Amino acid sequence: MAPTRRTSRDIRSESRLDVLHALLTAGETTRNELARTTGLSTATVATVVSDLLSRGIVTEARVASGRVGRPTTLLRLNQDRGRIVGVDVAETYIRAVVFDAALDEVAAAEVPADERHVGTEEVVDGVARAVDAALARAGTHRHDVLGVGVSLPGSMQRWGANSPVMPNAARHHVDRHHVDRLRERLDLPIVIDNPLKAIATAELWFGQGRRHASTITVNLGTGVGAGIILNGAILRGATNFAGEWGHSLLALDGRACRCGRRGCVEAYVGASGLQRTLAAVDPAHPLASVPLQRDFIGALAAALEPPGPDPAVTETIQRTARYLGAALADLVAIVNPETITLTGWTVWALGDHLVPAVRRSVVEEAPGDSAADLEVEVSTVRGNSVATGIATIALERFLSDVGLVTTRVPTAL
Amino acid sequence: MAPTRRTSRDIRSESRLDVLHALLTAGETTRNELARTTGLSTATVATVVSDLLSRGIVTEARVASGRVGRPTTLLRLNQDRGRIVGVDVAETYIRAVVFDAALDEVAAAEVPADERHVGTEEVVDGVARAVDAALARAGTHRHDVLGVGVSLPGSMQRWGANSPVMPNAARHHVDRHHVDRLRERLDLPIVIDNPLKAIATAELWFGQGRRHASTITVNLGTGVGAGIILNGAILRGATNFAGEWGHSLLALDGRACRCGRRGCVEAYVGASGLQRTLAAVDPAHPLASVPLQRDFIGALAAALEPPGPDPAVTETIQRTARYLGAALADLVAIVNPETITLTGWTVWALGDHLVPAVRRSVVEEAPGDSAADLEVEVSTVRGNSVATGIATIALERFLSDVGLVTTRVPTAL
Repeated sequence: MAPTRRTSRDIRSESRLDVLHALLTAGETTRNELARTTGLSTATVATVVSDLLSRGIVTEARVASGRVGRPTTLLRLNQDRGRIVGVDVAETYIRAVVFDAALDEVAAAEVPADERHVGTEEVVDGVARAVDAALARAGTHRHDVLGVGVSLPGSMQRWGANSPVMPNAARHHVDRHHVDRLRERLDLPIVIDNPLKAIATAELWFGQGRRHASTITVNLGTGVGAGIILNGAILRGATNFAGEWGHSLLALDGRACRCGRRGCVEAYVGASGLQRTLAAVDPAHPLASVPLQRDFIGALAAALEPPGPDPAVTETIQRTARYLGAALADLVAIVNPETITLTGWTVWALGDHLVPAVRRSVVEEAPGDSAADLEVEVSTVRGNSVATGIATIALERFLSDVGLVTTRVPTAL
Repeated sequence: MAPTRRTSRDIRSESRLDVLHALLTAGETTRNELARTTGLSTATVATVVSDLLSRGIVTEARVASGRVGRPTTLLRLNQDRGRIVGVDVAETYIRAVVFDAALDEVAAAEVPADERHVGTEEVVDGVARAVDAALARAGTHRHDVLGVGVSLPGSMQRWGANSPVMPNAARHHVDRHHVDRLRERLDLPIVIDNPLKAIATAELWFGQGRRHASTITVNLGTGVGAGIILNGAILRGATNFAGEWGHSLLALDGRACRCGRRGCVEAYVGASGLQRTLAAVDPAHPLASVPLQRDFIGALAAALEPPGPDPAVTETIQRTARYLGAALADLVAIVNPETITLTGWTVWALGDHLVPAVRRSVVEEAPGDSAADLEVEVSTVRGNSVATGIATIALERFLSDVGLVTTRVPTAL
């Protein structure tokens, strides 16, 4: 595939996305302020705002009268334009979140998933039930839904009748037939992508992504992966596999990974990797036999609170920080981002104890002084960043469908 | 640093680069043909060609009379516009190549370097001697030189009086003072960058880089590294460290690397890594004690020719293919390029024996079917791709200085 040539139409589209992002950040703001924060000319901002007003994406909130001069109109995203749903299909739960068109959360619903036994049938059914429950809670009619984004684990861009999905081959044997059924069952405009692209999108719209030329956001949960943002755009790669850092090597011939290979990053810093580290430190430790990952991570977090951890827990955190630091250093060596943000339920539970040690480890393990100025922080994206991100992708798709942005959202399907 | 906003001026600049690239590929061609190959409108091509003609970058070669219609003017790059010099400072040699302004090689000169004892003084002196010798051979006067590009190993964008250069800290303790002396000694416009950026530039202008949305070109020699091309542009990273894949992990706590860490890719697939693999297979093997890397790689290549390799050599090649395949699979997992090309003197010597096995290994080691359609080939860039690439960067800088392209070439200094 040849490189994409950028046209003046793409520049117009980017200006619109810049204005939307500025509105999202500011809440209510003026045309002059939009010009200042976006760096666009006032003439461009006026045109863009007019386009967005005419499509009902933006609305004139109210008139603010300053102390001097004539009153100024305040603009905001039109929350009542419709609803967007983001669905995070995780190994341990399926969560649907209803957002308004300004991407503020309206309501959410979660159905449990058993990490040990989840077939595609259960996933399709679980997504439908979670969406129905969330829409009911939000009091939203289906015809008000502009789009539904569904984040499914693994890299699913090559589904075929018989091709299993990576890396959870055994679990998500999802094929087009099943996706078509999901589409049919929901009867709503739907986009499907993987969680790495979702968290990257969330970081781009709500986190560090637009403040830096390059950001990597790393997700730590059952699976681990990286959302890579370069110059304001998400790196998808040739076949949407970019960011599958969780299945890059940490240790040749190391621990068996559930993807079938040995030594992957995920086998060390995924939730069950942490439990394996604890078991390696102290096989008889009571936490080493907690059966469910989320319970284990919760118990580990609890053990770190006063009166404080036992030596095996301390050693587990130290080893994990080193593994994670070394694995992040590989991202620095290859992509060399300005900033790395961490997200996912392992980070939410253990971040305070893990991040300072990880930061030291990255600087130590990265080539030369390449990580000297690198920021390593817990992501500032609020709430469930997978649901927020996949909803944002659904909104982008809607904006693309109505002709406001040219960013063709190359989702998995 | 905030993401770069693209302007209509950048688009004009990109059109000029597209036309230059098409001319470089075609040799002689017409305006109509340029429009066809670049996808630009005939009006745009006419404007671009006129700009390039007026600056003497392009010249009207001759008039071709077709069988019908009026004669057509053939265009080509103006070889006589001036000379460009590319200098490849490698661990084992310093090679200066003089190119004409169409980037055709005119003459070259090489001075040997001893991989075991090369200080900055020797490098500065060696570069100057190689450039002088190459210019003399080309019969080029210094005032005809449009620019000199110098590729120095390591990541040198943060030179300071006391900061050693990575990864060859012990060898290339180059600081601004030395670079200033190099500039003074050569008394020519100079750009400095690292070999990864040079090979990526060569791949972009002369290889796969413009035919694919994403290409990674991998250099195998004393050091190893990756030049990453995304959507027609080179990925430099926040601090010009992008592509330092040679210092990403292959094996946690593995072989000591000359960068000071353990387990780096380079310690396995760099030239001396291959020798260490052979020594691990058979410590008493005669090739295990060949003192110089280039002699060792040459001897290894000779051993692969009829009557054929002994079992230790075969095993060394097999292990190396697996190491390299696993390390390339990490690039696929993280960046997911359309194609990977291999270059560097280890590849030139061993490519035929190594590449088929490496290709199989990448497909096996990469996540899911992410490498199913990946092309892994020896680079088609002719000659010394580091010298060609760094000369191209010098030409880009010249085009930028005369206002034809906005691509600010963010070189190391």
